[in-house]
Amino acid sequence: MNALNIIPVEGIPEVRPGDDIADLISSATADLRDGDCLVVTQKIVSKAEGRLVDIDPDDPLSHKPLVEQESVRILRRRGDLIISQTSHGFVCANAGIDLSNVEHGQAALLPIDSDRSARGIRDRLKARAGVDVAVVVSDTFGRPWRRGVTDVAIGCAGIGAIADLRGTSDALGRELQVTEVAIVDEIASAADLVMGKSANIAVAIVRGLDSAWFRRGNVVEEIVRDPSDDLFR
Amino acid sequence: MNALNIIPVEGIPEVRPGDDIADLISSATADLRDGDCLVVTQKIVSKAEGRLVDIDPDDPLSHKPLVEQESVRILRRRGDLIISQTSHGFVCANAGIDLSNVEHGQAALLPIDSDRSARGIRDRLKARAGVDVAVVVSDTFGRPWRRGVTDVAIGCAGIGAIADLRGTSDALGRELQVTEVAIVDEIASAADLVMGKSANIAVAIVRGLDSAWFRRGNVVEEIVRDPSDDLFR
Repeated sequence: MNALNIIPVEGIPEVRPGDDIADLISSATADLRDGDCLVVTQKIVSKAEGRLVDIDPDDPLSHKPLVEQESVRILRRRGDLIISQTSHGFVCANAGIDLSNVEHGQAALLPIDSDRSARGIRDRLKARAGVDVAVVVSDTFGRPWRRGVTDVAIGCAGIGAIADLRGTSDALGRELQVTEVAIVDEIASAADLVMGKSANIAVAIVRGLDSAWFRRGNVVEEIVRDPSDDLFR
Repeated sequence: MNALNIIPVEGIPEVRPGDDIADLISSATADLRDGDCLVVTQKIVSKAEGRLVDIDPDDPLSHKPLVEQESVRILRRRGDLIISQTSHGFVCANAGIDLSNVEHGQAALLPIDSDRSARGIRDRLKARAGVDVAVVVSDTFGRPWRRGVTDVAIGCAGIGAIADLRGTSDALGRELQVTEVAIVDEIASAADLVMGKSANIAVAIVRGLDSAWFRRGNVVEEIVRDPSDDLFR
C-alpha cells in the first residue's frame, strides 16, 4: 500500500449562491492530479447551490420549522434537538441544518441531491482544470453509542462509496467475513483532520488512494440502509 | 493547517502471544518521530496479549458462546449475527470477536482494556525508541443507518479521544454549535485507508496532527456514551 497525503486547500473565499465550486478550487490550488480525491464540505456546496433560508436572528428556535420540513421521519426529540431522517435517507441531527459558518440570520439546508453535487464538481474540474479527480461531499454527523461527531460522506462521484472485499482472502488465506468498507466515510473523516471546525478550510485533497476504488459511486444508493436490512437500528 | 501523511508500516511479522508490539514496530520502521500517532489494529494487540481462544474449526457457530460470554447486554440477534455491548461499553457485532486473520481453529477476543493496551505500546516505544508518539488501537465496526463498516478507535494514549471545540468561534465569528469531534475515530478511519483488509498491514503512522490534541486520552471514558445521554440510541 502507498502512503496517503491529505492536503488542506487554503484560499477558498467565502462562498456565495451561484458560485462555481470547481472554479474556486482550481483558482485556489494548481496542485490537482489525476487520481486525487477532493473532499468538499457540505456547507460550501449548500451555499453555492443557494440552499440558504432566512431565519429570525433573534429567535434561537426559528430554524425548527425548517427541520420538520426537511425531514421525512422524526426519530427522536429532546429539548430543541431533533434526530430525523432526511429525504436522502440520512439520519442526523436537525436534518443536517446548521447555523455555524453561515451569515447571522440564515440557515443552510443540505444539498437537494448531494451525489449530483459531487458529480457536478467532478465534471467541471475535468472541463476547467483537465484533471480526473474523485469528489466526496462531507458533512458532520453524530451517531449512536459513541460520543463525538465525525465527518461522513453525503455524496460522491468518481469513487465507489463502498469497497467490497467479499471473497478476497486475508493474509492467512481465510475468506474475509467483514467485507464492505464504507471508504467514502473514512475519506471524509480523514479530510476533517486537516480542516478543523473553526479554520476556514472547506476543501482537502486526499492523494494516494487505491486506484481500484475509482469507479462510478453514489452515497445514497450504496450507503443508505434499507431499514429491513439494518440489524443495528 | 498542515498536510497529514498516513504511512503504512510494512514488515510486521505474524504476531504471537507474548510478542512486544513496540519491539515489532520499532524493528519494522526507523521512521518514527515525536508527535506521530501510531494506529495499531486490534487484531495484533489481541494476539500479542494472548486473547486467543480455541474453537472447533468444523463448526461455523463455535465462537457464539464466546460472544455471549464477552457481552454484558445483547441488543439484537438475527441468524448467527449478534449485536451486543461489550464490558468496555462498545456496541458492535459479535462482541468484536472475529475469525479473519487468525489461525484456523482460533478466535481473537478484544483486549481486556484497550486503552491500557495503547498506553503500554506508547510507554514501551518511548523506552525502546526514545520517541514520544500517541497510539490509537483501532477496530472495524458496523453502525446503524449506514451500510459498510468503518474503523474506529477502541483505545488511545497520548492523544485526547475527543477534541472539544466548544466556545471557539467559526470563520464568521459565530460560536460553534457542533463541538465535540471524535478525532481518534477519524484517525482510525484515516489509517484504514492504507491498510486494506487483505494486505498484511496492521500498523500505520499518522503524521502532522494538530499538536493541541496531544494529551492524556481514554476512549472508554470519553467516547462510550451514557445511555441516558444518547438521543441517537
